[in-house]
Amino acid sequence: MELLIRNAIKEDMSSVLKLIVELAVFEKEPDAVEISEEDLIVAGFGDDKQFDCFVAEADGEIVGMALVYFRFSTWKGRTVHLEDLVVKEKMRGKGVGKALYRRVMEYAAEQGVKRVNWVVLDWNKPAIDFYEQTGATILSSWWQVEMEELALKKFIEQKE
Amino acid sequence: MELLIRNAIKEDMSSVLKLIVELAVFEKEPDAVEISEEDLIVAGFGDDKQFDCFVAEADGEIVGMALVYFRFSTWKGRTVHLEDLVVKEKMRGKGVGKALYRRVMEYAAEQGVKRVNWVVLDWNKPAIDFYEQTGATILSSWWQVEMEELALKKFIEQKE
Repeated sequence: MELLIRNAIKEDMSSVLKLIVELAVFEKEPDAVEISEEDLIVAGFGDDKQFDCFVAEADGEIVGMALVYFRFSTWKGRTVHLEDLVVKEKMRGKGVGKALYRRVMEYAAEQGVKRVNWVVLDWNKPAIDFYEQTGATILSSWWQVEMEELALKKFIEQKE
Repeated sequence: MELLIRNAIKEDMSSVLKLIVELAVFEKEPDAVEISEEDLIVAGFGDDKQFDCFVAEADGEIVGMALVYFRFSTWKGRTVHLEDLVVKEKMRGKGVGKALYRRVMEYAAEQGVKRVNWVVLDWNKPAIDFYEQTGATILSSWWQVEMEELALKKFIEQKE
């Protein structure tokens, strides 16, 4: 297998969207994906660029992707956030994920950030083990909080 | 008490940094803050703007702040991330935090995002209760992962 990790181009966004949906299914949220290919093209390649994306190409086919953007830590300054790293199911266990992961870390080092951050599901032990082996730290006492669109609307409308 | 919530200006960054340090002490990581006032000014008010900041002014004194920036969800598109919300210890319990929180949610609604996200420490029950009362959801099964600068350097240098 010839594996190539490269920066994504607009034309990859259709394959990238398929991988995003595949990850949502794996994470047991098959209906959570509201984004379109066009949204990805505008956000990734428009004037107001919102992310960077790497793809893994095996024998000419897109088999994986990693999507990153900057965040701002009030402790460390700029950080790189790894939002998604997905490998097509049939291609798992062949080093594709590791190659994408390494590319993300190289990118973060090139950008000179003091930290890379991402999240993991508590039941995803193989991922947790892998991250720890590479030197990452799991912070299980920091919980995610989300205010969704409808709840936000409702909250705004409430009298104080 | 006359309370004003407004957009931060450069000149507020000295007070904002003091609040950042106060929060780090509360979170039991007093030495974690590596950022300077100058870093905040460059990141918040330079050409490559990395965050937005709101401050709470009570009788002319800065007594709280909230710092936000955009993230990109591959499920929802652009989201607002609330990185920090801090109120000076002596001013807690007077509605300052709630006023800042409301301003952040209004900002998110103005920006048209589908989600606001932030994190909370699992032992911070008053905060968790407050967030849930306002309609937010706590996702305790998503854990934070961090690769710090030294670990990153070490990982990059390893042979594959």
